[in-house]
Amino acid sequence: MLPPFCMAKERNRQEIIRQCTRFVGGHYPVSPQQMLAELAAFTPPETRSDHYGAGELMASFEAEVAQLLGKETAVFMPSGTMAQQIALRIHANRSGNKTVAFHPTCHLEMHEQHAYRELHQLSGVLVGNPDYLMTLDDLKAVKVPIGTLLIELPQREIGGMLPSWEELTELVDYARGQGMAVHLDGARLWECQPFYKRPYAEICTLFDSVYVSFYKTLNGITGAMLLGERSLIDEAKVWQRRHGGNLIRMYPFVLSAKMGLEQHLPNMQAYYDKTVEIAAAISQIEGIELKPTVPHCNRLFVYFRRDSQRLNDAVLDIASETKTLLFHGTWPSLIPAYAMTELWFGNAALDLSTEEIADLFTELMRRSAELNFV
Amino acid sequence: MLPPFCMAKERNRQEIIRQCTRFVGGHYPVSPQQMLAELAAFTPPETRSDHYGAGELMASFEAEVAQLLGKETAVFMPSGTMAQQIALRIHANRSGNKTVAFHPTCHLEMHEQHAYRELHQLSGVLVGNPDYLMTLDDLKAVKVPIGTLLIELPQREIGGMLPSWEELTELVDYARGQGMAVHLDGARLWECQPFYKRPYAEICTLFDSVYVSFYKTLNGITGAMLLGERSLIDEAKVWQRRHGGNLIRMYPFVLSAKMGLEQHLPNMQAYYDKTVEIAAAISQIEGIELKPTVPHCNRLFVYFRRDSQRLNDAVLDIASETKTLLFHGTWPSLIPAYAMTELWFGNAALDLSTEEIADLFTELMRRSAELNFV
Repeated sequence: MLPPFCMAKERNRQEIIRQCTRFVGGHYPVSPQQMLAELAAFTPPETRSDHYGAGELMASFEAEVAQLLGKETAVFMPSGTMAQQIALRIHANRSGNKTVAFHPTCHLEMHEQHAYRELHQLSGVLVGNPDYLMTLDDLKAVKVPIGTLLIELPQREIGGMLPSWEELTELVDYARGQGMAVHLDGARLWECQPFYKRPYAEICTLFDSVYVSFYKTLNGITGAMLLGERSLIDEAKVWQRRHGGNLIRMYPFVLSAKMGLEQHLPNMQAYYDKTVEIAAAISQIEGIELKPTVPHCNRLFVYFRRDSQRLNDAVLDIASETKTLLFHGTWPSLIPAYAMTELWFGNAALDLSTEEIADLFTELMRRSAELNFV
Repeated sequence: MLPPFCMAKERNRQEIIRQCTRFVGGHYPVSPQQMLAELAAFTPPETRSDHYGAGELMASFEAEVAQLLGKETAVFMPSGTMAQQIALRIHANRSGNKTVAFHPTCHLEMHEQHAYRELHQLSGVLVGNPDYLMTLDDLKAVKVPIGTLLIELPQREIGGMLPSWEELTELVDYARGQGMAVHLDGARLWECQPFYKRPYAEICTLFDSVYVSFYKTLNGITGAMLLGERSLIDEAKVWQRRHGGNLIRMYPFVLSAKMGLEQHLPNMQAYYDKTVEIAAAISQIEGIELKPTVPHCNRLFVYFRRDSQRLNDAVLDIASETKTLLFHGTWPSLIPAYAMTELWFGNAALDLSTEEIADLFTELMRRSAELNFV
């Protein structure tokens, strides 16, 4: 609970954001009421509810995504946290090796209260430097036998970086040669295609199991999917029930995922192109640094040689005056002189000229520059 | 996958049911499109989404149910399977005793792929006879130390039976005296109030932790809640994240739960009274037996001295001719001469006279009587 002063400030912040009509980052926000009305309009009257994972709506959507990603079959789940633990547990059961290797910024390590250990008794090995992509040398340096290698594409917590196709296939080939199962954390897989310029199915063929998410880039309400061979998915459904994720009805999630796939997947190239253009423009501004310097997908980290609080205040001032929201906030980075934010671009930025966006960033830097700081 | 002949028969069955406009059992069915449109109308435009369990919508609904059930605080979860395992794990961690005692028909034993054991390393002890309520003598007969006792009110798998208030409090007092934690499986708790004639809060005060469901009697899309003291619920949220149930957005579930509570909770007495009236009427029909003979809540088991398949065909014939669905189906019971079904009554039966319902059951028995069977 925030203290009263902060509560008032937070309410004011939310009120300013609510009045914005133009957005630099992400997709246009959709309120619950809007989303529910859109889904009601999107849903044919004869559509019947899913029932504990069964039914035509669920089966046809799972088949559609399985075909897109070139996997035999798929199961829709409430979350990636659930889907990925389950995939890793099954690989561990099959190989008898409970050691899972992943990047130090892996979602399982940072955001899941170590469920892989607490619920599934798996052992995690962190591979590589938290600020860079995992390399083949990093993997070779691990001295314990690894059962499963998890690769995240793109690597969200380092600005959405992606290994080259050659680096990626080398890593996977080595892992397979060592007898590891290879799992894809594809929470934002949809964002990779413009970089690899290959069909999703070709990317996914590298992996024994694939997890994708529907609420990030695709703007669904929530929901995830785990894909792989039928025997793996059949087993995953047993674990899904154990996790309490075999819900009697998930149709709002499924329908919003389906709608999101239709609305956003055809635009991934446009989101990427816009991201590259914006990055090129704002990287010219004094005091702004980007990671990566040229975006690998429609997301990146932005570093500002400014105080975080002053930046956040300036974002709100600009939002209040122009009804245009640059982004939600910044936080201190590891480099004391720099604050940082994560930016990703979706349908909202397409309605703004890159010149205007660059001008807004210039104005942001001007307004937040007035105070000296350590 | 059903064979082609069965698929065609199943499609025909679904088509007949779809054309029904009157229903004896349950609530009027609501299609996904209807539900989404109703929710859009129910949701104020200013309502903001929940965000990983936080936000005004979630907090106010959790507080509302916590107050209704007389508990300090609450957390909304996607499912009861998740909520109950979490409650039992926390009680086990606190007492150091991993043994959980429950009725042989407990959901954890029958429908969760033994997740309590596979995910949480808990040990289950079945107490009492599967066909009767758990008694104090049953509990006293257990020779291993029990950490947590789970009580289900009403006991769904034996026709929604309920112990008397005296039996219930004796059971709980004994368990507490032995140092057990006591957990309530209140999946259908809403149905108990007309039987106990006590506020929900008074019933819940007997328990250290309470789980309730929003999609059964209350007709929500899905969703559950776990209630108890703040320290327990704070810990439950960590486990919820581990289970993959701390979803970024659950507003369709929360809103439908809220709507269901408003629509159905005030009618529980009416549903119960109608159930008692229907039971009295159909128990007069030759070849029909009820369990319990007088319903304890708005649900019961009905046994027919008929072949299950002939009953199911007759249900569809009657549905086809009258656009009135008696129930979805029957299955063979343990007594060879009898088929059985589970019936519960909600808003749909209130629109039919009990005389008409009794006549439909009589007609059902007449039509399904033509064949001799073993």
